[in-house]
Amino acid sequence: MAEDIPAQYHDLFDEPNFATFATKMPAGTPQQTVVWVDREERESVDRVLVNTERGRQKERNVQRDPLVGVCIIDPEDGYRYVSVRGRVEEVTAEGADDHADMLARQYMDVEEYPSREEEEGDRVVLRVEPLRVTGTESA
Amino acid sequence: MAEDIPAQYHDLFDEPNFATFATKMPAGTPQQTVVWVDREERESVDRVLVNTERGRQKERNVQRDPLVGVCIIDPEDGYRYVSVRGRVEEVTAEGADDHADMLARQYMDVEEYPSREEEEGDRVVLRVEPLRVTGTESA
Repeated sequence: MAEDIPAQYHDLFDEPNFATFATKMPAGTPQQTVVWVDREERESVDRVLVNTERGRQKERNVQRDPLVGVCIIDPEDGYRYVSVRGRVEEVTAEGADDHADMLARQYMDVEEYPSREEEEGDRVVLRVEPLRVTGTESA
Repeated sequence: MAEDIPAQYHDLFDEPNFATFATKMPAGTPQQTVVWVDREERESVDRVLVNTERGRQKERNVQRDPLVGVCIIDPEDGYRYVSVRGRVEEVTAEGADDHADMLARQYMDVEEYPSREEEEGDRVVLRVEPLRVTGTESA
């Protein structure tokens, strides 16, 4: 059952914060990388969007096993964070270049995602349906 | 095969930085929480130490499945991080209270771990053997 992201944590997704994205290696070991992240508001339930290159380890991992985690620590306060457990419901190249450019504007204040020409694989968006959202507010 | 943590990332463990600790839920979903973290230098290969309360979700998860991830982002530079994939080789209450106090001094500048009396379970140390260490230096 999908679960919404509580409004109290929206700022962590909507500001250009770095997220730790957890997938699983073939042997089952959790693999974490640091990613840009975005929140998509849907009528039913929010989605978390991660943009990556097709063929990278995290993309291969979610193609094999779509269960993932996304965690964001408040850069101003390490005791405040949000942690999403979810499922990648779609891996799509549609709109992924525009989405990478949008993230580059937010995170780097440049017009276009700058590493595009160095990459061999297509840009893809991983759309994560949140299944469980936890977090802590600072004491 | 255990793998050492390259010296270029030691500062991320040795400074009081927050780490994202990834375990697996019973259904296999990666679960991430934010933890204090410590590096233990051994003759053979470094260990990563996490201190938690017995009975918490992360502790129950590693008792069932010891494969974990530990990721630290440089608080000064989100493009620099270290990510460890590893295996919990020991869960021990021995020395765990002293270890919690030591972490409280490092992270909170207080003499004793302040939440001890609110907790029902023993403090335990999760000792992680690194199996694979990756990271990025900022461009």
